[in-house]
Amino acid sequence: MKQLFASDNASPAHPEILKALAALPADHAISYGDDATSAAAAEGIAGLFGVDAGVYFVYNGTGANVSALRAMARSWEAVICAEMAHINEDEGGAPEAIGGFKLLGVPRPDGRLRPEDLEPFLGRRGFEHTNQPAVVSLTQATEVGTIYWPEDLRRLVAAAHDAGLTVHVDGARIANAAAAVLERARAAGDEMTPAAAMRAVTVDAGIDVLSFGATKNGLLFGEAVVFFNRDLESPYRFLRKQTTQLHSKMRYIGGQFLRYLDDDLWLGNALAANRGAARLSSALAEIPGFDVAVPTEANGVFVTLTPAAIAPLQEEFGFYMWDEERNLARLMVSWDTREDTIDAFVARARSLTG
Amino acid sequence: MKQLFASDNASPAHPEILKALAALPADHAISYGDDATSAAAAEGIAGLFGVDAGVYFVYNGTGANVSALRAMARSWEAVICAEMAHINEDEGGAPEAIGGFKLLGVPRPDGRLRPEDLEPFLGRRGFEHTNQPAVVSLTQATEVGTIYWPEDLRRLVAAAHDAGLTVHVDGARIANAAAAVLERARAAGDEMTPAAAMRAVTVDAGIDVLSFGATKNGLLFGEAVVFFNRDLESPYRFLRKQTTQLHSKMRYIGGQFLRYLDDDLWLGNALAANRGAARLSSALAEIPGFDVAVPTEANGVFVTLTPAAIAPLQEEFGFYMWDEERNLARLMVSWDTREDTIDAFVARARSLTG
Amino acid sequence: MKQLFASDNASPAHPEILKALAALPADHAISYGDDATSAAAAEGIAGLFGVDAGVYFVYNGTGANVSALRAMARSWEAVICAEMAHINEDEGGAPEAIGGFKLLGVPRPDGRLRPEDLEPFLGRRGFEHTNQPAVVSLTQATEVGTIYWPEDLRRLVAAAHDAGLTVHVDGARIANAAAAVLERARAAGDEMTPAAAMRAVTVDAGIDVLSFGATKNGLLFGEAVVFFNRDLESPYRFLRKQTTQLHSKMRYIGGQFLRYLDDDLWLGNALAANRGAARLSSALAEIPGFDVAVPTEANGVFVTLTPAAIAPLQEEFGFYMWDEERNLARLMVSWDTREDTIDAFVARARSLTG
Amino acid sequence: MKQLFASDNASPAHPEILKALAALPADHAISYGDDATSAAAAEGIAGLFGVDAGVYFVYNGTGANVSALRAMARSWEAVICAEMAHINEDEGGAPEAIGGFKLLGVPRPDGRLRPEDLEPFLGRRGFEHTNQPAVVSLTQATEVGTIYWPEDLRRLVAAAHDAGLTVHVDGARIANAAAAVLERARAAGDEMTPAAAMRAVTVDAGIDVLSFGATKNGLLFGEAVVFFNRDLESPYRFLRKQTTQLHSKMRYIGGQFLRYLDDDLWLGNALAANRGAARLSSALAEIPGFDVAVPTEANGVFVTLTPAAIAPLQEEFGFYMWDEERNLARLMVSWDTREDTIDAFVARARSLTG
Repeated sequence: MKQLFASDNASPAHPEILKALAALPADHAISYGDDATSAAAAEGIAGLFGVDAGVYFVYNGTGANVSALRAMARSWEAVICAEMAHINEDEGGAPEAIGGFKLLGVPRPDGRLRPEDLEPFLGRRGFEHTNQPAVVSLTQATEVGTIYWPEDLRRLVAAAHDAGLTVHVDGARIANAAAAVLERARAAGDEMTPAAAMRAVTVDAGIDVLSFGATKNGLLFGEAVVFFNRDLESPYRFLRKQTTQLHSKMRYIGGQFLRYLDDDLWLGNALAANRGAARLSSALAEIPGFDVAVPTEANGVFVTLTPAAIAPLQEEFGFYMWDEERNLARLMVSWDTREDTIDAFVARARSLTG
Repeated sequence: MKQLFASDNASPAHPEILKALAALPADHAISYGDDATSAAAAEGIAGLFGVDAGVYFVYNGTGANVSALRAMARSWEAVICAEMAHINEDEGGAPEAIGGFKLLGVPRPDGRLRPEDLEPFLGRRGFEHTNQPAVVSLTQATEVGTIYWPEDLRRLVAAAHDAGLTVHVDGARIANAAAAVLERARAAGDEMTPAAAMRAVTVDAGIDVLSFGATKNGLLFGEAVVFFNRDLESPYRFLRKQTTQLHSKMRYIGGQFLRYLDDDLWLGNALAANRGAARLSSALAEIPGFDVAVPTEANGVFVTLTPAAIAPLQEEFGFYMWDEERNLARLMVSWDTREDTIDAFVARARSLTG
Repeated sequence: MKQLFASDNASPAHPEILKALAALPADHAISYGDDATSAAAAEGIAGLFGVDAGVYFVYNGTGANVSALRAMARSWEAVICAEMAHINEDEGGAPEAIGGFKLLGVPRPDGRLRPEDLEPFLGRRGFEHTNQPAVVSLTQATEVGTIYWPEDLRRLVAAAHDAGLTVHVDGARIANAAAAVLERARAAGDEMTPAAAMRAVTVDAGIDVLSFGATKNGLLFGEAVVFFNRDLESPYRFLRKQTTQLHSKMRYIGGQFLRYLDDDLWLGNALAANRGAARLSSALAEIPGFDVAVPTEANGVFVTLTPAAIAPLQEEFGFYMWDEERNLARLMVSWDTREDTIDAFVARARSLTG
Repeated sequence: MKQLFASDNASPAHPEILKALAALPADHAISYGDDATSAAAAEGIAGLFGVDAGVYFVYNGTGANVSALRAMARSWEAVICAEMAHINEDEGGAPEAIGGFKLLGVPRPDGRLRPEDLEPFLGRRGFEHTNQPAVVSLTQATEVGTIYWPEDLRRLVAAAHDAGLTVHVDGARIANAAAAVLERARAAGDEMTPAAAMRAVTVDAGIDVLSFGATKNGLLFGEAVVFFNRDLESPYRFLRKQTTQLHSKMRYIGGQFLRYLDDDLWLGNALAANRGAARLSSALAEIPGFDVAVPTEANGVFVTLTPAAIAPLQEEFGFYMWDEERNLARLMVSWDTREDTIDAFVARARSLTG
């Protein structure tokens, strides 16, 4: 069965998720979220984070991010993010066009904002000619497969809060970040629970709002927006609807999430993807002329290729170049990527550079 | 198994649709629509309409309508619609907030615009102080369960085109409209095909763009925007993405539509719902004090209730009042509503008015 | 010198205003409002209203209305107004396109909203599918030259506040409304002051925000937005700038307003216009076939004309038809409209109907 | 009389402009631009550029830029500009909030875009996840007082057009750019006409749309948007109105422009400001510890100050720090800045560094 490194959304829905959908009761249920399945799923998500959070289901990551940020920033305000942030480069201008606010992108090769990156934007506070910084949005795991480790995340969130900014996390790959933290803890002999790992990369660091991604990690469709800071929550219901993100037959999102939480399916999928990426990364690092450009901490491998290898590898394994000038490829590993797919890539790569 | 008359989206996904999802190949596929399943589904939809249309999958009806209208009207323009149109009253202000344009609602008790309804808006053409009418958006079947019959639709579309307006159809219940036309034709001895019925209520009448609904008629999620007028199409790809309506794992929409088209599942579902509504409507009309307020032509029954009957019926059958002052209830019949549910409603209603 | 009844903005700037501009000191001053002239003018306006209001200068009425309403309503909310309101019909869709919110227009032949007009919009509170009513915007004097008399205004504002709505007044012709109240009071033997009259039609009735118009009543350009409810004020500085309404050389607006307030120039101009309209209205009412359609309470006369009179009168006196089907003309009288202009119109009208 | 270096909009209106306003006929005139004065002014502007351009009056620079760009870029498109561009940093987020499109800022220390700056943005053409570059917007003279010299401008415009982009010029200080070109030409013995200089920095280089500034150079208020590329013009009337930039008593803008064009008042003012800046710049360059950071080509002097000199000079001459970390001051010279003001600044600066 054909497998690609194009994106973790090239992978199919997990069979257990599909099974759970088929097993949902075929009765009638009030739509738009007032059903028992959706309520249970929302409760399950809040339980995972261990706090009384506001949980709202939406369709996709762009919808989650845009609707969440609309609750956090008004049109004359600004959102500080990494220049490479998905909201800045890959959401078709939806944040500006729908939210009206401005994105202030910071060039960061590893995709991670640092506390000191906030300062340059704080100087024109109160000056009506300039958008007023209100939010920091960070991506966890980042667009180049790095992680905000818990201690770094806490420092960044604290700096943001000290500056009067709230913090949004684009968690399209939040499970991969949690899985990475769990693996590191366990390697250090710390028997961290899955929930503790998930909390360490989100709520325990003090973030305000999370786009809780799941589609890249096994769902057909569906994400959740989670308000830890409930002061920001009151307009959200209206904003979700107005951002075209309110699903009628909501139980078909809720039902997926129920299964996703059950027996930590989210974690198993994310661990599998991360381990595949680690395997791929370390093998490619051995190939002369290949260079892993950013630490492989989650499920993406960013590696420079020898020029002659690019076309044949793309042809066979369907991935994108992240930076054509630098011959830098992005290889995304999915929850279901097989070891033989990874090994075949490595073998082919080696044969092309031999 | 509990059944409600609250909405046709209170019904579950059709089991065949769920089965089709589970049967999709579990390989990797390029995301955002560049996969074989989505391509086949788009081709299937174009085939149903018998023309070389542009077909784009989206998540939901609000998303379909807003993104489609953004391709048809710019911010200083206006969209003429019935006052009760879903875009005007039930999309959380998304058309204005995202599209920027103005909606010009015409009060129409039966939900149907007439050619003469367009005229009052044409007088201030070229006058820069007023939004310029550019589009007529009509709902097929309407929000009160009536149909634009083919001959009426043709006249309305012709009037719109004569006035330089393009025509959008909100087809959240387009299958119900087609089913109604088919039944009427067959009752008249005309062996109309399902595709001919679908075309009669859309493309054959000359409409420009269709929001092709399916979620209310058996899907988990997913609708399509269909451009018959391909001059309007070029910006749409960008607008769909920017309206947060581009799904990554598109094949899970495409896969549903493939099954939906196969063996005319769409028609069977719609016929079942329409017939249920007819059964309900004619039985309720017999009850003293009950009054069917609008002709029951599709799958919605709009009936005034005796005051004492409202609360107990709502308690048991979960429907909404369309107009509280008039005691006017909206009873939506779904593809799966059983005859015994309908008959139980009628019996209970009768007992409450006895 | 040619005079028209096309609009009160067809009139020139008042010579005293032009003189005041020429007399402003030619030194350098900090721009964007931080100058002594603008500060004095803002203080003067607050003084006229007798309260500690927030006063902000802008360019024009559309800018005043749109920027003010953006501070009062968010995108998922709605503004209730008369259907004929300038914001609804004559601002090029700026409220929706820039503010995002929805306008809910109430058909009112005399342009005046009544307390009972609010009720139909209050039913879907909290329902996320519908824009949430947040503001009532009324026009004082109305678009058809009627006045919200103080007692009526108080009742409407109280009803709005009771329903949790704030109240915006589009005061493009607020001086004409105040002048009308003053005249009525004086006719009743009440020696009302000019300031008291101005307050009676605005702040004393409890309104929250006023678009304080002046361009139609003698300025070259320039209006002010006045926040009586200072809880709504904090985002306004940013919204004024973002709505493109922040003038750099602000003192040239402030300087006009200083003169406008001085010796009640605003009142003299408004009284002159109102009296001209009264003279015109009562003379036209005498002409057979002419019918004053709405009470002439400010400076606009709305009169149905005999068909044959329309073209020759328009040719000579340059006015607009308010409703072509009804042969209803709008005749706007300006601060400088001469009695001989009015009398010439009446004479010509009479000659055309003889 | 107090003079500041805070901004060229700290200066007053030119007395000749005020005189021209007072001399306008006090008759009635059709509003919103359909008057003889405005028509003559529009014709005069087109004549200055020597082409059949579309000329539209607006209130201010932000309004000119935002409304012009709305005619050039749709919401899913992008505008490439210098990072320091006024549209990017000083318009309160109006371009994004009102236009919806994205600004792509290029860090350029001298404020000038180069042809090679466009390339990085052209790679994702047709990719619906990213805003599509459509326009290059450049500022003439730039925000740091440099000029796009005609030959450089031609190359940049040609590169933009080759890439399918149109070109907008923010000409808030276009007169200063033209004056600089004229002076350089005359210094080289070329008897260039004023109009030829103006054309060299705009239309002759092939630009599509110009925000023709005048408020910083002697008007009370008022700018013009000039369409050289008339294919872009048709929606502009509606966009100007919707952007709240349509003035009712338009002749008071037109009347200023008529005088501004007459006897090349624009040129005289700009030359005076430029010469003052040159005098200031060359004198400050002589002061030890002071460093002119960017070539002084128009009417702004950007100079690093010795730390101890900053506060006392600001106190006395009221200017802004452009970059606090670098002790970089912005000193704007106006059309009316006297030599004795300049010399006093220099003397005081020298005394503070002695």
